[in-house]
Amino acid sequence: MPAFQGANMAKQVATNITWHEGDVTREEREGLLGHKGATLWMTGLSGSGKSTIAVALEQVLLKSSVSAYRLDGDNIRHGLNKNLGFSADDRAENIRRVGEVAKLFADACVVAITSFISPYAKDRDLVRKLHADAQLPFIEVYVKCPLAVAEDRDPKGLYKKARAALAAGKGMNFTGIDDPYEEPVNAELVIDTSATSVEEAVRILLAALRKQSVLPA
Amino acid sequence: MPAFQGANMAKQVATNITWHEGDVTREEREGLLGHKGATLWMTGLSGSGKSTIAVALEQVLLKSSVSAYRLDGDNIRHGLNKNLGFSADDRAENIRRVGEVAKLFADACVVAITSFISPYAKDRDLVRKLHADAQLPFIEVYVKCPLAVAEDRDPKGLYKKARAALAAGKGMNFTGIDDPYEEPVNAELVIDTSATSVEEAVRILLAALRKQSVLPA
Repeated sequence: MPAFQGANMAKQVATNITWHEGDVTREEREGLLGHKGATLWMTGLSGSGKSTIAVALEQVLLKSSVSAYRLDGDNIRHGLNKNLGFSADDRAENIRRVGEVAKLFADACVVAITSFISPYAKDRDLVRKLHADAQLPFIEVYVKCPLAVAEDRDPKGLYKKARAALAAGKGMNFTGIDDPYEEPVNAELVIDTSATSVEEAVRILLAALRKQSVLPA
Repeated sequence: MPAFQGANMAKQVATNITWHEGDVTREEREGLLGHKGATLWMTGLSGSGKSTIAVALEQVLLKSSVSAYRLDGDNIRHGLNKNLGFSADDRAENIRRVGEVAKLFADACVVAITSFISPYAKDRDLVRKLHADAQLPFIEVYVKCPLAVAEDRDPKGLYKKARAALAAGKGMNFTGIDDPYEEPVNAELVIDTSATSVEEAVRILLAALRKQSVLPA
Protein backbone atom coordinates (compact mmCIF):
# COMPACT_ATOMS: atom_id res chain seq x y z
CA MET A 1 0.00 0.00 0.00
CA PRO A 2 1.78 3.21 -1.06
CA ALA A 3 1.90 6.06 1.46
CA PHE A 4 1.01 9.58 0.41
CA GLN A 5 3.99 10.96 -1.50
CA GLY A 6 5.93 14.13 -0.90
CA ALA A 7 7.54 14.78 2.47
CA ASN A 8 6.86 18.50 2.39
CA MET A 9 3.21 18.00 1.52
CA ALA A 10 2.54 15.52 4.31
CA LYS A 11 1.70 16.83 7.76
CA GLN A 12 2.28 14.39 10.59
CA VAL A 13 -0.22 15.74 13.09
CA ALA A 14 -0.50 12.77 15.41
CA THR A 15 -0.17 9.02 15.45
CA ASN A 16 -2.11 7.68 12.47
CA ILE A 17 -3.65 11.01 11.55
CA THR A 18 -1.79 12.56 8.64
CA TRP A 19 -3.02 14.31 5.57
CA HIS A 20 -1.90 16.75 2.95
CA GLU A 21 -3.52 19.88 1.58
CA GLY A 22 -5.95 19.54 -1.29
CA ASP A 23 -7.64 16.65 -2.99
CA VAL A 24 -6.50 13.09 -2.91
CA THR A 25 -5.23 12.51 -6.43
CA ARG A 26 -6.83 9.79 -8.48
CA GLU A 27 -3.56 7.86 -8.48
CA GLU A 28 -3.33 7.99 -4.69
CA ARG A 29 -6.89 6.76 -4.37
CA GLU A 30 -6.33 3.93 -6.85
CA GLY A 31 -3.16 2.90 -5.03
CA LEU A 32 -4.88 2.91 -1.64
CA LEU A 33 -7.96 0.98 -2.80
CA GLY A 34 -6.11 -1.40 -5.14
CA HIS A 35 -8.10 -0.83 -8.33
CA LYS A 36 -9.47 1.87 -10.57
CA GLY A 37 -13.02 2.98 -11.04
CA ALA A 38 -14.98 2.74 -14.29
CA THR A 39 -18.45 2.93 -15.71
CA LEU A 40 -19.88 -0.10 -17.48
CA TRP A 41 -22.86 1.27 -19.34
CA MET A 42 -25.23 -1.53 -20.28
CA THR A 43 -27.75 -0.57 -22.94
CA GLY A 44 -30.36 -2.75 -24.61
CA LEU A 45 -34.03 -3.62 -24.87
CA SER A 46 -36.14 -4.41 -21.85
CA GLY A 47 -35.64 -8.13 -21.24
CA SER A 48 -32.31 -8.23 -23.08
CA GLY A 49 -30.49 -9.38 -19.95
CA LYS A 50 -28.81 -6.18 -18.73
CA SER A 51 -29.78 -6.65 -15.10
CA THR A 52 -29.01 -10.36 -14.99
CA ILE A 53 -25.49 -9.73 -16.24
CA ALA A 54 -25.07 -6.70 -13.96
CA VAL A 55 -26.12 -8.66 -10.87
CA ALA A 56 -23.69 -11.49 -11.65
CA LEU A 57 -20.81 -9.15 -12.46
CA GLU A 58 -21.33 -7.08 -9.32
CA GLN A 59 -21.14 -10.19 -7.15
CA VAL A 60 -18.01 -11.52 -8.86
CA LEU A 61 -16.28 -8.15 -8.45
CA LEU A 62 -17.28 -7.79 -4.78
CA LYS A 63 -16.02 -11.29 -4.04
CA SER A 64 -12.63 -10.15 -5.32
CA SER A 65 -12.89 -7.12 -2.99
CA VAL A 66 -13.41 -4.80 -5.94
CA SER A 67 -15.95 -2.17 -4.99
CA ALA A 68 -18.82 -2.28 -7.49
CA TYR A 69 -22.32 -0.83 -7.49
CA ARG A 70 -25.29 -1.15 -9.76
CA LEU A 71 -27.39 1.81 -10.79
CA ASP A 72 -30.76 0.87 -12.22
CA GLY A 73 -34.36 1.94 -12.34
CA ASP A 74 -35.01 0.50 -8.90
CA ASN A 75 -32.57 2.70 -7.00
CA ILE A 76 -32.69 5.74 -9.30
CA ARG A 77 -36.28 6.21 -10.41
CA HIS A 78 -37.54 6.01 -6.81
CA GLY A 79 -34.82 8.26 -5.45
CA LEU A 80 -32.66 10.76 -7.29
CA ASN A 81 -34.95 10.84 -10.32
CA LYS A 82 -38.34 10.51 -8.70
CA ASN A 83 -39.18 14.03 -9.89
CA LEU A 84 -38.80 12.97 -13.53
CA GLY A 85 -41.50 11.54 -15.77
CA PHE A 86 -41.32 9.95 -19.20
CA SER A 87 -41.46 12.94 -21.54
CA ALA A 88 -38.63 13.20 -24.06
CA ASP A 89 -36.94 15.88 -21.93
CA ASP A 90 -37.32 13.91 -18.71
CA ARG A 91 -35.95 10.75 -20.30
CA ALA A 92 -32.88 12.62 -21.46
CA GLU A 93 -32.45 14.20 -18.02
CA ASN A 94 -32.87 10.75 -16.44
CA ILE A 95 -29.92 9.39 -18.42
CA ARG A 96 -27.85 12.55 -17.91
CA ARG A 97 -28.20 12.33 -14.14
CA VAL A 98 -27.40 8.61 -14.13
CA GLY A 99 -24.34 9.38 -16.22
CA GLU A 100 -23.21 12.07 -13.77
CA VAL A 101 -23.72 9.77 -10.79
CA ALA A 102 -21.88 6.90 -12.50
CA LYS A 103 -19.04 9.33 -13.17
CA LEU A 104 -18.87 10.20 -9.45
CA PHE A 105 -18.74 6.51 -8.56
CA ALA A 106 -16.01 5.89 -11.13
CA ASP A 107 -14.09 8.86 -9.72
CA ALA A 108 -14.47 7.28 -6.26
CA CYS A 109 -12.79 4.09 -7.59
CA VAL A 110 -16.00 2.11 -7.74
CA VAL A 111 -16.98 0.07 -10.79
CA ALA A 112 -20.39 1.54 -11.60
CA ILE A 113 -22.62 -0.84 -13.56
CA THR A 114 -25.66 0.84 -15.06
CA SER A 115 -28.70 -1.00 -16.41
CA PHE A 116 -30.93 1.35 -18.34
CA ILE A 117 -32.50 0.77 -21.75
CA SER A 118 -31.01 4.15 -22.76
CA PRO A 119 -32.33 3.82 -26.32
CA TYR A 120 -31.04 7.11 -27.75
CA ALA A 121 -27.51 7.42 -29.10
CA LYS A 122 -27.45 11.14 -28.26
CA ASP A 123 -27.98 10.47 -24.53
CA ARG A 124 -25.39 7.69 -24.41
CA ASP A 125 -22.88 9.84 -26.27
CA LEU A 126 -23.35 12.62 -23.74
CA VAL A 127 -22.51 10.21 -20.91
CA ARG A 128 -19.51 8.93 -22.86
CA LYS A 129 -18.27 12.50 -23.25
CA LEU A 130 -18.71 13.24 -19.52
CA HIS A 131 -16.36 10.35 -18.76
CA ALA A 132 -13.89 11.21 -21.51
CA ASP A 133 -13.66 14.80 -20.24
CA ALA A 134 -12.94 13.46 -16.75
CA GLN A 135 -10.48 10.86 -18.11
CA LEU A 136 -12.45 8.04 -16.55
CA PRO A 137 -12.88 4.61 -18.17
CA PHE A 138 -16.22 4.23 -19.92
CA ILE A 139 -17.27 0.94 -21.43
CA GLU A 140 -20.49 0.94 -23.40
CA VAL A 141 -21.92 -2.57 -23.49
CA TYR A 142 -24.62 -3.25 -26.04
CA VAL A 143 -26.64 -6.08 -24.54
CA LYS A 144 -28.03 -7.31 -27.82
CA CYS A 145 -31.05 -9.51 -28.14
CA PRO A 146 -33.66 -9.93 -30.89
CA LEU A 147 -36.90 -8.17 -30.00
CA ALA A 148 -38.81 -11.45 -30.37
CA VAL A 149 -36.58 -13.12 -27.76
CA ALA A 150 -36.81 -10.19 -25.32
CA GLU A 151 -40.56 -10.03 -25.79
CA ASP A 152 -40.86 -13.75 -25.21
CA ARG A 153 -38.88 -13.44 -21.93
CA ASP A 154 -40.91 -10.37 -20.85
CA PRO A 155 -39.72 -10.69 -17.21
CA LYS A 156 -41.82 -7.77 -15.97
CA GLY A 157 -44.82 -8.22 -18.28
CA LEU A 158 -44.09 -4.85 -19.85
CA TYR A 159 -44.23 -5.97 -23.47
CA LYS A 160 -47.63 -7.50 -22.88
CA LYS A 161 -48.83 -4.20 -21.42
CA ALA A 162 -47.30 -2.21 -24.26
CA ARG A 163 -48.92 -4.45 -26.92
CA ALA A 164 -52.28 -4.15 -25.15
CA ALA A 165 -51.96 -0.37 -24.91
CA LEU A 166 -51.07 -0.17 -28.58
CA ALA A 167 -54.01 -2.38 -29.54
CA ALA A 168 -56.29 -0.10 -27.50
CA GLY A 169 -54.94 2.90 -29.41
CA LYS A 170 -53.06 4.28 -26.40
CA GLY A 171 -49.34 4.26 -27.07
CA MET A 172 -46.89 3.81 -24.17
CA ASN A 173 -43.78 4.93 -26.09
CA PHE A 174 -42.33 1.59 -25.12
CA THR A 175 -38.90 0.88 -26.61
CA GLY A 176 -39.08 -1.71 -29.36
CA ILE A 177 -42.87 -1.52 -29.63
CA ASP A 178 -43.81 2.09 -30.29
CA ASP A 179 -40.53 3.86 -29.61
CA PRO A 180 -37.21 3.24 -31.35
CA TYR A 181 -34.08 1.62 -29.96
CA GLU A 182 -31.06 3.17 -31.62
CA GLU A 183 -28.44 0.44 -31.82
CA PRO A 184 -24.98 1.50 -30.62
CA VAL A 185 -22.48 1.82 -33.46
CA ASN A 186 -19.38 2.43 -31.35
CA ALA A 187 -19.96 0.28 -28.27
CA GLU A 188 -16.80 -1.14 -26.71
CA LEU A 189 -18.60 -4.48 -26.31
CA VAL A 190 -21.54 -6.23 -27.90
CA ILE A 191 -22.96 -9.19 -26.01
CA ASP A 192 -25.63 -11.17 -27.81
CA THR A 193 -27.58 -12.75 -24.97
CA SER A 194 -29.51 -15.05 -27.29
CA ALA A 195 -26.18 -16.85 -27.83
CA THR A 196 -24.06 -16.03 -24.73
CA SER A 197 -24.37 -17.44 -21.22
CA VAL A 198 -24.32 -15.15 -18.20
CA GLU A 199 -21.03 -16.77 -17.19
CA GLU A 200 -19.49 -15.97 -20.57
CA ALA A 201 -20.85 -12.42 -20.43
CA VAL A 202 -19.18 -11.89 -17.05
CA ARG A 203 -15.90 -13.24 -18.42
CA ILE A 204 -16.09 -10.82 -21.35
CA LEU A 205 -16.72 -7.88 -19.02
CA LEU A 206 -13.90 -8.85 -16.66
CA ALA A 207 -11.55 -9.11 -19.63
CA ALA A 208 -12.59 -5.63 -20.75
CA LEU A 209 -11.94 -4.24 -17.26
CA ARG A 210 -8.48 -5.83 -17.28
CA LYS A 211 -7.76 -4.51 -20.75
CA GLN A 212 -8.55 -0.97 -19.59
CA SER A 213 -6.35 -1.54 -16.48
CA VAL A 214 -9.33 -1.06 -14.18
CA LEU A 215 -8.44 -4.44 -12.68
CA PRO A 216 -4.92 -5.84 -12.43
CA ALA A 217 -4.00 -8.02 -15.44
CA MET B 1 -13.83 -13.00 3.76
CA PRO B 2 -17.26 -14.69 4.03
CA ALA B 3 -18.54 -16.53 0.98
CA PHE B 4 -22.05 -15.99 -0.29
CA GLN B 5 -24.37 -18.01 1.92
CA GLY B 6 -26.94 -20.60 0.96
CA ALA B 7 -25.93 -23.64 -1.05
CA ASN B 8 -29.16 -23.77 -3.00
CA MET B 9 -28.95 -20.09 -3.87
CA ALA B 10 -25.40 -20.21 -5.13
CA LYS B 11 -24.72 -21.28 -8.70
CA GLN B 12 -21.23 -22.53 -9.33
CA VAL B 13 -20.97 -21.85 -13.03
CA ALA B 14 -17.22 -22.05 -13.47
CA THR B 15 -14.00 -21.56 -11.56
CA ASN B 16 -14.21 -18.26 -9.73
CA ILE B 17 -17.46 -17.20 -11.36
CA THR B 18 -20.37 -17.78 -9.01
CA TRP B 19 -23.35 -15.67 -8.13
CA HIS B 20 -26.83 -15.97 -6.76
CA GLU B 21 -30.12 -14.60 -7.97
CA GLY B 22 -31.12 -11.13 -6.93
CA ASP B 23 -29.37 -8.30 -5.18
CA VAL B 24 -26.30 -8.60 -3.03
CA THR B 25 -27.62 -7.98 0.46
CA ARG B 26 -26.20 -5.10 2.41
CA GLU B 27 -24.70 -7.53 4.93
CA GLU B 28 -22.94 -9.48 2.18
CA ARG B 29 -21.52 -6.29 0.74
CA GLU B 30 -20.33 -5.08 4.15
CA GLY B 31 -18.71 -8.43 4.84
CA LEU B 32 -16.94 -8.49 1.48
CA LEU B 33 -15.69 -4.89 1.69
CA GLY B 34 -14.87 -4.93 5.42
CA HIS B 35 -16.82 -1.88 6.52
CA LYS B 36 -20.23 -0.24 6.27
CA GLY B 37 -21.24 2.83 4.35
CA ALA B 38 -22.52 6.04 5.90
CA THR B 39 -23.21 9.66 5.14
CA LEU B 40 -21.39 12.34 7.10
CA TRP B 41 -23.34 15.49 6.37
CA MET B 42 -21.24 18.56 7.16
CA THR B 43 -23.26 21.75 7.44
CA GLY B 44 -22.05 25.23 8.36
CA LEU B 45 -21.22 28.72 7.13
CA SER B 46 -18.93 29.32 4.19
CA GLY B 47 -15.43 29.38 5.69
CA SER B 48 -16.43 27.34 8.74
CA GLY B 49 -13.97 24.59 7.86
CA LYS B 50 -16.24 21.91 6.35
CA SER B 51 -13.99 21.20 3.37
CA THR B 52 -10.76 21.25 5.37
CA ILE B 53 -12.10 18.64 7.75
CA ALA B 54 -13.63 16.61 4.91
CA VAL B 55 -10.35 16.51 2.99
CA ALA B 56 -8.42 15.34 6.06
CA LEU B 57 -11.00 12.73 7.04
CA GLU B 58 -11.21 11.32 3.52
CA GLN B 59 -7.45 10.82 3.43
CA VAL B 60 -7.31 9.17 6.84
CA LEU B 61 -10.11 6.77 5.87
CA LEU B 62 -8.55 5.91 2.51
CA LYS B 63 -5.23 5.19 4.18
CA SER B 64 -7.04 2.60 6.28
CA SER B 65 -8.49 1.13 3.05
CA VAL B 66 -11.93 2.46 3.92
CA SER B 67 -13.61 3.67 0.76
CA ALA B 68 -14.60 7.32 1.23
CA TYR B 69 -15.66 10.05 -1.17
CA ARG B 70 -16.34 13.74 -0.82
CA LEU B 71 -19.32 15.41 -2.45
CA ASP B 72 -19.03 19.17 -2.63
CA GLY B 73 -19.83 22.14 -4.81
CA ASP B 74 -16.84 21.44 -7.03
CA ASN B 75 -17.92 18.01 -8.22
CA ILE B 76 -21.69 18.51 -7.95
CA ARG B 77 -22.46 22.03 -9.14
CA HIS B 78 -20.43 21.53 -12.33
CA GLY B 79 -21.85 18.09 -13.02
CA LEU B 80 -25.05 16.55 -11.71
CA ASN B 81 -26.51 19.88 -10.64
CA LYS B 82 -25.24 22.14 -13.37
CA ASN B 83 -28.81 22.69 -14.53
CA LEU B 84 -29.74 24.23 -11.17
CA GLY B 85 -29.48 27.88 -10.20
CA PHE B 86 -29.78 29.61 -6.85
CA SER B 87 -33.53 30.18 -6.55
CA ALA B 88 -35.16 28.82 -3.39
CA ASP B 89 -36.51 25.83 -5.33
CA ASP B 90 -33.20 25.12 -7.02
CA ARG B 91 -31.31 25.32 -3.73
CA ALA B 92 -33.68 22.80 -2.19
CA GLU B 93 -33.36 20.52 -5.24
CA ASN B 94 -29.58 20.88 -5.05
CA ILE B 95 -29.53 19.52 -1.51
CA ARG B 96 -32.13 16.83 -2.28
CA ARG B 97 -30.04 15.46 -5.14
CA VAL B 98 -26.86 15.54 -3.06
CA GLY B 99 -28.73 13.67 -0.35
CA GLU B 100 -29.91 11.02 -2.81
CA VAL B 101 -26.41 10.58 -4.22
CA ALA B 102 -24.87 10.36 -0.75
CA LYS B 103 -27.45 7.69 0.05
CA LEU B 104 -26.38 5.68 -3.01
CA PHE B 105 -22.74 5.92 -1.93
CA ALA B 106 -23.63 4.85 1.61
CA ASP B 107 -25.61 1.92 0.17
CA ALA B 108 -22.51 1.02 -1.85
CA CYS B 109 -20.48 0.82 1.42
CA VAL B 110 -18.68 4.09 0.82
CA VAL B 111 -18.37 6.74 3.53
CA ALA B 112 -19.87 9.76 1.75
CA ILE B 113 -18.65 13.07 3.18
CA THR B 114 -20.69 16.04 2.01
CA SER B 115 -19.60 19.68 2.34
CA PHE B 116 -22.47 22.02 1.59
CA ILE B 117 -23.57 25.05 3.59
CA SER B 118 -27.08 23.52 3.54
CA PRO B 119 -28.49 26.35 5.66
CA TYR B 120 -32.11 25.22 5.89
CA ALA B 121 -33.24 22.70 8.49
CA LYS B 122 -36.05 21.49 6.21
CA ASP B 123 -33.61 20.40 3.50
CA ARG B 124 -31.27 18.69 5.97
CA ASP B 125 -34.18 16.90 7.60
CA LEU B 126 -35.33 15.58 4.24
CA VAL B 127 -31.88 14.07 3.67
CA ARG B 128 -31.89 12.61 7.16
CA LYS B 129 -35.25 10.97 6.44
CA LEU B 130 -34.01 9.51 3.13
CA HIS B 131 -31.27 7.73 5.05
CA ALA B 132 -33.49 6.65 7.93
CA ASP B 133 -35.99 5.14 5.47
CA ALA B 134 -33.16 3.18 3.87
CA GLN B 135 -31.70 2.21 7.27
CA LEU B 136 -28.37 3.80 6.42
CA PRO B 137 -26.18 5.63 8.97
CA PHE B 138 -26.54 9.40 8.76
CA ILE B 139 -24.37 11.68 10.86
CA GLU B 140 -25.19 15.37 10.72
CA VAL B 141 -22.11 17.37 11.65
CA TYR B 142 -22.64 21.01 12.49
CA VAL B 143 -19.34 22.67 11.68
CA LYS B 144 -19.82 25.64 13.95
CA CYS B 145 -17.91 28.85 13.69
CA PRO B 146 -18.78 32.45 14.62
CA LEU B 147 -19.67 34.48 11.53
CA ALA B 148 -16.90 36.99 12.36
CA VAL B 149 -14.30 34.21 12.28
CA ALA B 150 -15.61 32.68 9.04
CA GLU B 151 -15.78 36.13 7.44
CA ASP B 152 -12.24 36.87 8.56
CA ARG B 153 -11.01 33.61 6.99
CA ASP B 154 -13.01 34.25 3.79
CA PRO B 155 -10.98 31.63 1.84
CA LYS B 156 -12.80 32.26 -1.44
CA GLY B 157 -13.39 36.01 -1.04
CA LEU B 158 -17.13 35.39 -1.05
CA TYR B 159 -17.96 37.41 2.06
CA LYS B 160 -16.16 40.38 0.61
CA LYS B 161 -18.23 40.08 -2.56
CA ALA B 162 -21.44 39.65 -0.58
CA ARG B 163 -20.71 42.72 1.58
CA ALA B 164 -19.91 44.78 -1.52
CA ALA B 165 -23.08 43.61 -3.25
CA LEU B 166 -25.13 44.47 -0.19
CA ALA B 167 -23.52 47.92 0.06
CA ALA B 168 -24.38 48.47 -3.61
CA GLY B 169 -27.98 47.56 -2.89
CA LYS B 170 -27.80 44.26 -4.80
CA GLY B 171 -28.29 41.33 -2.46
CA MET B 172 -26.61 37.98 -3.18
CA ASN B 173 -28.70 35.95 -0.73
CA PHE B 174 -25.41 34.92 0.81
CA THR B 175 -25.72 32.78 3.92
CA GLY B 176 -24.82 34.74 7.05
CA ILE B 177 -24.93 38.11 5.27
CA ASP B 178 -28.33 38.47 3.67
CA ASP B 179 -29.69 34.96 3.99
CA PRO B 180 -30.21 33.01 7.21
CA TYR B 181 -28.28 30.00 8.48
CA GLU B 182 -30.62 27.79 10.50
CA GLU B 183 -28.48 26.19 13.20
CA PRO B 184 -29.01 22.44 13.55
CA VAL B 185 -30.82 21.51 16.73
CA ASN B 186 -30.46 17.72 16.46
CA ALA B 187 -27.05 17.26 14.86
CA GLU B 188 -25.21 14.11 15.94
CA LEU B 189 -22.03 16.17 16.26
CA VAL B 190 -21.15 19.80 16.76
CA ILE B 191 -17.56 20.78 16.00
CA ASP B 192 -16.59 24.35 16.89
CA THR B 193 -13.70 25.06 14.55
CA SER B 194 -12.76 28.25 16.35
CA ALA B 195 -11.66 25.98 19.22
CA THR B 196 -10.94 22.57 17.61
CA SER B 197 -7.96 21.53 15.48
CA VAL B 198 -8.45 19.64 12.25
CA GLU B 199 -6.73 16.67 13.87
CA GLU B 200 -9.16 16.70 16.77
CA ALA B 201 -12.12 17.08 14.40
CA VAL B 202 -10.98 13.99 12.49
CA ARG B 203 -10.66 12.04 15.76
CA ILE B 204 -14.21 13.04 16.72
CA LEU B 205 -15.57 11.93 13.33
CA LEU B 206 -13.70 8.61 13.45
CA ALA B 207 -15.08 7.98 16.93
CA ALA B 208 -18.60 8.67 15.66
CA LEU B 209 -18.10 6.24 12.77
CA ARG B 210 -16.93 3.58 15.23
CA LYS B 211 -19.85 4.25 17.55
CA GLN B 212 -22.29 3.67 14.70
CA SER B 213 -20.38 0.48 13.75
CA VAL B 214 -19.49 1.90 10.35
CA LEU B 215 -15.86 1.14 11.21
CA PRO B 216 -14.70 -1.73 13.42
CA ALA B 217 -14.37 -0.70 17.08
